[in-house]
Amino acid sequence: LARRVAGFGTTIFTEMSALALERGAINLGQGFPDFPGPSFVKEAATAAIGADINQYAPMPGLPRLRQAVAAQWECDYGRAVDWQREVTITSGATEALCDAMLALLDPGDGVVIFEPAYDAYVPDITLAGGTPLPVRLYPPVADHTAWWFDPVELHAAFARKPTLIILNTPHNPTGKVFTRTELELIAHLCQEYNTIAITDEVYDRLVFDGAAHIPLATLPGMWERTLTLNSAGKTFSVTGWKIGYAVGPAHLNHALRQAHQWVTFATASPLQEAIATALEQASVNGYYRDLLRDYGERRARLEQALETAGLPVLPVEGAYFISADISATGWTDDRAFCRWLTTDIGVAAIPTSVFYSDPASAPCLARFCFAKRLETIDAAAERLAALR
Amino acid sequence: LARRVAGFGTTIFTEMSALALERGAINLGQGFPDFPGPSFVKEAATAAIGADINQYAPMPGLPRLRQAVAAQWECDYGRAVDWQREVTITSGATEALCDAMLALLDPGDGVVIFEPAYDAYVPDITLAGGTPLPVRLYPPVADHTAWWFDPVELHAAFARKPTLIILNTPHNPTGKVFTRTELELIAHLCQEYNTIAITDEVYDRLVFDGAAHIPLATLPGMWERTLTLNSAGKTFSVTGWKIGYAVGPAHLNHALRQAHQWVTFATASPLQEAIATALEQASVNGYYRDLLRDYGERRARLEQALETAGLPVLPVEGAYFISADISATGWTDDRAFCRWLTTDIGVAAIPTSVFYSDPASAPCLARFCFAKRLETIDAAAERLAALR
Ligand SMILES: CSCCC(=O)C(=O)O
Ligand SMILES: CSCCC(=O)C(=O)O
Repeated sequence: LARRVAGFGTTIFTEMSALALERGAINLGQGFPDFPGPSFVKEAATAAIGADINQYAPMPGLPRLRQAVAAQWECDYGRAVDWQREVTITSGATEALCDAMLALLDPGDGVVIFEPAYDAYVPDITLAGGTPLPVRLYPPVADHTAWWFDPVELHAAFARKPTLIILNTPHNPTGKVFTRTELELIAHLCQEYNTIAITDEVYDRLVFDGAAHIPLATLPGMWERTLTLNSAGKTFSVTGWKIGYAVGPAHLNHALRQAHQWVTFATASPLQEAIATALEQASVNGYYRDLLRDYGERRARLEQALETAGLPVLPVEGAYFISADISATGWTDDRAFCRWLTTDIGVAAIPTSVFYSDPASAPCLARFCFAKRLETIDAAAERLAALR
Repeated sequence: LARRVAGFGTTIFTEMSALALERGAINLGQGFPDFPGPSFVKEAATAAIGADINQYAPMPGLPRLRQAVAAQWECDYGRAVDWQREVTITSGATEALCDAMLALLDPGDGVVIFEPAYDAYVPDITLAGGTPLPVRLYPPVADHTAWWFDPVELHAAFARKPTLIILNTPHNPTGKVFTRTELELIAHLCQEYNTIAITDEVYDRLVFDGAAHIPLATLPGMWERTLTLNSAGKTFSVTGWKIGYAVGPAHLNHALRQAHQWVTFATASPLQEAIATALEQASVNGYYRDLLRDYGERRARLEQALETAGLPVLPVEGAYFISADISATGWTDDRAFCRWLTTDIGVAAIPTSVFYSDPASAPCLARFCFAKRLETIDAAAERLAALR
């Protein structure tokens, strides 16, 4: 094993999904829908396969999909995007993130991340020889009605002159949606310290209760220094298709492609074609509105189930996860709790501490996914009732 | 740009395919079929999408596909393979190769490659901080009826104690199929110097005129130190699906997965399912026999076209490329020749010199792909006739 991978464990999603499968638990751990993707999207994929769009896509992605991504960006944020030079298609946002680290980090370079951090960020930084500079997100308390960070700690991280910051909004696992005020501070610091931002916005369509998703790239001065990563998997409920994309200035797309062309070269052509159709049609057929309505229902149903089981929930503004406070159960180790919950209660969840560089310092929370049919959530609710 | 990617150019396949498209040239450059993939494989993909196999596959790949790969290996080479620990599915052999380098190379580690070398090898080694140790393949001459290497030069490369060797057989671009005697020497040196072999065997089904494909891993003592990479794209004429796989001992699969889980995490689920069906059915429905028959015809047709055009062809034992000697045309720069052939004659080919660390030292050859319909080859023949 090379040194860069020697310290890696197994991703928590593999661990918990395997345990859930083995024990027949209802899997509210790993984030993926248990309902089918929309028919218009699946039909588009079937049509593409039939039409023999089965050979290599161009390395930066199928033109039609890049055009659809550019058109969407222009429509949503009012900025004209050059689809040829400012959009790249990757094998999921996961690949885009890895490409970005390999292409932009030299050994020793610092990367600001907010903690809890999605579990790929630290390994990706490590693969490229970089150094994570974690800044804490704190759970809601007193005046803070949402997860929050201390600006002093963010300043301190930037004082170490980071090459990059990875920003995830809507945020996994907390469900936090970064506010304009918070983004303004991040934008200010990026410009002051000449830091490039890699933003993971895969949950951009899943924002609740009037919270607004704001891409960091849309703040003044930020387009030129931001690569916005997204993925069709969450938006179109086809997490297994692995169609991601990066939007940003030509120089950052060029950098990304210098890794991408060797890391995977290209991404599944017929699925790219289908996602082009998905993006084109979703903006006119009401898909996003229905998606949000359905997720609103699922969220309410799962919140209710958790509260009823004696697991108080933290507020969720975006994404499809709920954090529940498990301290009242008597468990102090969230990892042990989640294993027990999976094996003995029959409901899998993800321990939040795995998203911290120092798990011992994490709040005692478990993350539950509500990208599930209402019947699945109801079945989980029945099992969770045993906790009372 | 990070230093590791700063020296990278654009892959020749992107360059020549873009030029071919722009000029309306017949594209015999980048290697991909211009005929449809087999119906039984496309139907399997359509069925998988309809059956909602659209969420994340497990990180190492869908069990059914891993089982099919293991069964195939056992059937072809008589070795029982543990599908859970000894097979990993990746986003093409391209990703597997990149994963292997990231997982096995520390900065400064040496990697033996045979030159001409497929154009991803040196960038992959470079991404991981390794050092390529090229060993020459020489064109057929006198006693040597096929491409050959000098054992003294191979010994010298191994004397530098390489961590890895990348072996590509059947070989792209030359069409060489490594003989048992050659493989025995490689196997002997790997064991003497404790070197791990990464073998790229994506053209294993395309072997002509009684030549036999022998996986290096099947030689005595080699299973434990070899990771065999393959891809469904070439075998099933769906290069755009990007379904690759790695077969080898658990410790090398474990290493590969330590990179794979962060590089892409998983690969398109419905296409994995379709390739499982492809592998299961192909061994009983005569697919491989028909594939070889069709490719034999295409090869003969293109050889004829090139010879008629005054471009003598070198022998091709495997893969789907023909190298033609362009020295009689008066061109001495194969890169300039290929651009001219694309723009002025209307047939795109790949200059062989791009596959050498010192292009100036390369023989004056152009590589033509025969994964094309006979009508395409005939149309190219008509244009190539202008060379006489
Ligand atoms: C790559 S599997 C993880 C899915 C996910 O985004 C999550 O559960 O947080
Ligand atoms: C990744 S595009 C290159 C296709 C190919 O294998 C070749 O043309 O050699």
